[in-house]
Amino acid sequence: MTQTREEFEARLRQIGAERYHDKHPFHDLLHGGRCTPDQVRAWVINRYYYQHTIPMKDAAFMSRVEDPALRRAWRSRIEDHDGHGENEGGIERWLRLADAVGLDRAYVAAREGVLPATRFACDAYLRFVRDKTLLEAVASSLTELFAPKIHANRIEGLLQHYDFADERALSYFKRRLSEAPKDVAFGLQWVLDHADTQEKQDAAAAALEFKTDVLWAQLDALYSAYVTPARIPPGGWQPGTYLRAVAA
Amino acid sequence: MTQTREEFEARLRQIGAERYHDKHPFHDLLHGGRCTPDQVRAWVINRYYYQHTIPMKDAAFMSRVEDPALRRAWRSRIEDHDGHGENEGGIERWLRLADAVGLDRAYVAAREGVLPATRFACDAYLRFVRDKTLLEAVASSLTELFAPKIHANRIEGLLQHYDFADERALSYFKRRLSEAPKDVAFGLQWVLDHADTQEKQDAAAAALEFKTDVLWAQLDALYSAYVTPARIPPGGWQPGTYLRAVAA
Repeated sequence: MTQTREEFEARLRQIGAERYHDKHPFHDLLHGGRCTPDQVRAWVINRYYYQHTIPMKDAAFMSRVEDPALRRAWRSRIEDHDGHGENEGGIERWLRLADAVGLDRAYVAAREGVLPATRFACDAYLRFVRDKTLLEAVASSLTELFAPKIHANRIEGLLQHYDFADERALSYFKRRLSEAPKDVAFGLQWVLDHADTQEKQDAAAAALEFKTDVLWAQLDALYSAYVTPARIPPGGWQPGTYLRAVAA
Repeated sequence: MTQTREEFEARLRQIGAERYHDKHPFHDLLHGGRCTPDQVRAWVINRYYYQHTIPMKDAAFMSRVEDPALRRAWRSRIEDHDGHGENEGGIERWLRLADAVGLDRAYVAAREGVLPATRFACDAYLRFVRDKTLLEAVASSLTELFAPKIHANRIEGLLQHYDFADERALSYFKRRLSEAPKDVAFGLQWVLDHADTQEKQDAAAAALEFKTDVLWAQLDALYSAYVTPARIPPGGWQPGTYLRAVAA
């Protein structure tokens, strides 16, 4: 049976309450100051692959949208990540974080030591948005509903526990606090407007679950490779390597 | 510099020596009899997703091949998995293994509790074969060069250590001992014939590395979810569920 707008929104929010990656133990370690410098670096290296994927995902979406108004509304997401005028963009801000944790930013940007499981998960997201309905594509972006809280916790936890953390290093997360709510307010309304049958509601909910899987799988891979018992797969970044040359 | 045929073959075999998943600790547990029944079941459930993907991967390959002789040579792979005449096929034989370890085969065939990371890895393989050059697609199949040894070890280890293991339960692996060498002999010759520049050799080697990542990532996900410390991601199969009704 088709749910009311309110019921369906509650269903989407419940998916976040049950499956969003703020519940993954890696975030407890990270925000609680119990990550080693190399575990923080591994997170920065791998999460960069996700950042790198997002604007391609948004371009893939726009390439399938025939309505100029929807494309115009969506375009700011690419600007937020790639930069626009005075705004250097989220990818550049992520590389500042790479600098701050002592990594060679060229190595991070080249994405060489990224865990295969991270690549597979992020690439699956890009393909999902390329291949599925527009409704599923928009619904898969709604994990941003749950992001502001984790970003606020992260800023607080990193500032409190790690020497590298300062306003410049954490500018990515600070900025997302204002960008994400704007994007997700639009996306949520669009999904609620367009998921007007049970079949579409089920597909949109499944798309949001898929996206929570994409995020969770990245942290599982990170935990498995770099936490305990650490087991780095062939080709993964080796702790202590590709550190930034420090100016004298 | 372009390598000689012999040098290039040695390079491909070296990739297996360094990265093939026979080196993953999950296989030590499995073949050494140190998996619990539920860990064996988790392996059977997740590896089924790989089995399910393979004939689609081979069909994707054939859909891009213009040469009837190459398609004809490749077609037996699909028959080996899906069945042909008296041969029930590898997928059916895998479901016999599911029966033998006490799982509900309909649940296994529905692929519901498969780990997201398993899906992402196998789907990445299917997309790789759809999107890359034919040379890279064939090269990615060459992990079969390294498979007969692991299948022989597995048959021996499972028979020795687990009550469920008998000829019927293990017929998948027994059969692959004769099928895989035939396929891979063809694939290896094709790759050696066609990788006639350094650029192509590098691409073929990278494709084989990619495939070892696909296999390794599946075992990492399994180990992370079901071995120690077990951390099953949202939606993953829960131990003790979906067991086969036992006849009175």
